[in-house]
Amino acid sequence: MSNPAYTAMWEKLNLDIPAHDGLLEVLGKFYGDIYMSQQGRLQGMEYLDFVLSEVHGLRIQELQQAKEQGKKIIGTFCVFVPEEITLAAGAVHVGLCSGADAGTEEAEKLVPRNTCALIKSFIGFKLARLCPFTESCDLVVGETTCDGKKKAYEAFAEHVPMHVMEVPNTKSDAARDLFKTEVLRYMQALQQLTGTAITPQALASGIRAVNAKRRALQRLSALRSADPAPISGRDALLINQVSFYDDPERFTHSINALCDQMEERIARKEGIAPAGTPRLLLSGCPMAVPNWKLPYIMESSGAVIVGEESCIGTRNTRDLVDESQETLDGMIDALVDRYMKIDCACFTPNTERLHNVTAMAQELKADGIVHYALKFCQPYAHEAFKIEKAAREKDIPVLSVETDYSMEDAEQLKTRVEAFVEMVRG
Amino acid sequence: MSNPAYTAMWEKLNLDIPAHDGLLEVLGKFYGDIYMSQQGRLQGMEYLDFVLSEVHGLRIQELQQAKEQGKKIIGTFCVFVPEEITLAAGAVHVGLCSGADAGTEEAEKLVPRNTCALIKSFIGFKLARLCPFTESCDLVVGETTCDGKKKAYEAFAEHVPMHVMEVPNTKSDAARDLFKTEVLRYMQALQQLTGTAITPQALASGIRAVNAKRRALQRLSALRSADPAPISGRDALLINQVSFYDDPERFTHSINALCDQMEERIARKEGIAPAGTPRLLLSGCPMAVPNWKLPYIMESSGAVIVGEESCIGTRNTRDLVDESQETLDGMIDALVDRYMKIDCACFTPNTERLHNVTAMAQELKADGIVHYALKFCQPYAHEAFKIEKAAREKDIPVLSVETDYSMEDAEQLKTRVEAFVEMVRG
Ligand code: SF4
Ligand code: SF4
Ligand code: SF4
Ligand code: SF4
Repeated sequence: MSNPAYTAMWEKLNLDIPAHDGLLEVLGKFYGDIYMSQQGRLQGMEYLDFVLSEVHGLRIQELQQAKEQGKKIIGTFCVFVPEEITLAAGAVHVGLCSGADAGTEEAEKLVPRNTCALIKSFIGFKLARLCPFTESCDLVVGETTCDGKKKAYEAFAEHVPMHVMEVPNTKSDAARDLFKTEVLRYMQALQQLTGTAITPQALASGIRAVNAKRRALQRLSALRSADPAPISGRDALLINQVSFYDDPERFTHSINALCDQMEERIARKEGIAPAGTPRLLLSGCPMAVPNWKLPYIMESSGAVIVGEESCIGTRNTRDLVDESQETLDGMIDALVDRYMKIDCACFTPNTERLHNVTAMAQELKADGIVHYALKFCQPYAHEAFKIEKAAREKDIPVLSVETDYSMEDAEQLKTRVEAFVEMVRG
Repeated sequence: MSNPAYTAMWEKLNLDIPAHDGLLEVLGKFYGDIYMSQQGRLQGMEYLDFVLSEVHGLRIQELQQAKEQGKKIIGTFCVFVPEEITLAAGAVHVGLCSGADAGTEEAEKLVPRNTCALIKSFIGFKLARLCPFTESCDLVVGETTCDGKKKAYEAFAEHVPMHVMEVPNTKSDAARDLFKTEVLRYMQALQQLTGTAITPQALASGIRAVNAKRRALQRLSALRSADPAPISGRDALLINQVSFYDDPERFTHSINALCDQMEERIARKEGIAPAGTPRLLLSGCPMAVPNWKLPYIMESSGAVIVGEESCIGTRNTRDLVDESQETLDGMIDALVDRYMKIDCACFTPNTERLHNVTAMAQELKADGIVHYALKFCQPYAHEAFKIEKAAREKDIPVLSVETDYSMEDAEQLKTRVEAFVEMVRG
């Protein structure tokens, strides 16, 4: 990615160039170790390798071109921010990664030390001027899902232009009303920012585009029930991660092409790992780029990951928006209904997640579940207890892991994961 | 409190008698060290000493008598649960303390280790069968204020009869609507539990009773602007703590009598500490009985506490409910308006708290603010940064403390507090 045109672009975005160069180097090496080392990968993964290698290059160039054409860039941290509406306003929707330690010391001047790594990451990346996505955003949209983010956005808003959506704590009718109001308020904010009135046609097309993306990811997820597993968990996670910042149509097309290859491979009874390899479901907090530590440890401990029950995974793709509505209000209602189905741990109660996790483990023929919570993430740490109990009732073993982005616990994690893999191998 | 009648009552409540005896002994000693050691206390504090000494005795006996008369006992953990409505339904409203370490090991089987001490405390007290209030409750009412409580109530509900109220994350109109729905739902639940229809007369009387209690506490708070300080912070905190479980009318009467004594003392220019003693405002998380560690450290470091900006303090007493409404719906609206003014850190944004804290420091002539957050309490830990900044702008020094219920950090805290007191003494 060291291209003089890129450097000029990064300078214009006011990145800290030497620190950013350092980051890209570390990231490249990390990616090489974790991804390029895999044997028997699907050919279609080349597209993802390319996208990832150009994530701070070509993709940022595209965003700058979009901006020159008058398009607005919207940054998000949570799957509650409806991409359908962003697209309907002719804007670009990107997920801001927050998957690496950077600027932690700076971040701890704005947020408490006992804050999850994801939050410290997005604050740190901003303060250390390392993220060309954040710097490209015309608006960053937050939400009130957890205490950490809810309060961190107050500090973050002093550094980036922010809009915060209220996500309720329950799924009562009154809570749904509140969320609908917030969806309409987001639409209003976007219309103001872009100077575009959102038409029913535009929203319908946004809904179709996002549904198509989710359908491609559903297709990919379903194919992973095959034994031998047609794709590694690392690669599947990467695909889900890339879904948050690539162009939606290009992405959908590429993933469907990849699924075609997977089907051929499955027909040939080939896989990324031999049949009978212990199959694990990864469940819990979303794993943002480049947070590949735990998946890598799992898959280098003799297991293959067959599903990601997280927002960078099935929690974001399970449900589609009803496409049969014709009025704007009908579409908004359909959209709200779909979003209120999300089984995030921020809700109380969130019993549907217990069902979804165990059902997913069974459908994907997982031999065990690794539940992952970021350290200091209270919602998912609480649900770890419930997932363990629900899985126990279905005789599915669970390993509950709490970690962050540092490598300090890698050895210790590996020991625990290896023991778990041996146990489920039975 | 070792009275055979009490022991029989505790046995009936299924307390762990030997462990409970041990707890009372420790508590009695702790209270003696921290409270009875004070010189020149107001005579009216004898009432509070008595109430506290009988907190697990006489008061529980009263609750049992109320139950025999068919009254229901409602336990709460947060000032968002409207006592006015509880009283209107003819029920008894008690705050469940959660201010001591007990049953921590058991609690950590239900909630994550990185949970604040208050939550672990109420879970631990229940699992260890130590709290006669919890055991007396016909209904425990939770709320969705913070991630920790929101998710802990899911586990707690497997052990006590629970009703959870949704408190929104913002103060928008839609959020107010949601909270009103929740107030009505609480009213419904109480009517069902008690078999009483809440009449406008009953609600008006509940509102008057709670307003009267708040007015007495406001009066007490205002008198503390005098120098020398007429009452210690420890005693004032105790009064606020007792306000959560004593009978409201008896309490109001006693506090007004105490305020009369305070006025006489102020007129004589007498105080609990000499004029010119460094005056500190304590601000942050609520301090439940018997969490007196930090106030004791502050007042044994040469300072006097002149105000408690917390829910066991002014956050609960600052605002009154409008008494001019005559219809049930008018009263509910007045009540909702009052509750939506609470400046809890669970809201985003919560800028009114910054104003309230600094204004309070100025009114009470505080020389500095000690901001207190329970370890792992994200909402208040985030706001510590904001309070520091807002106070700095008004030249008020702030010491930010994060601690829990253990005594391990007492020495270290004392060193920090002493240095702060020396600094503000100037
Ligand atoms: S886990 Fe919850 S808060 Fe996090 S991205 Fe998903 S929906 Fe949003
Ligand atoms: S990992 Fe947990 S604490 Fe961190 S942002 Fe997500 S929900 Fe919040
Ligand atoms: S600090 Fe907030 S959550 Fe705690 S008791 Fe007060 S209002 Fe309730
Ligand atoms: S101290 Fe903080 S984390 Fe603990 S219950 Fe109160 S608001 Fe929640």
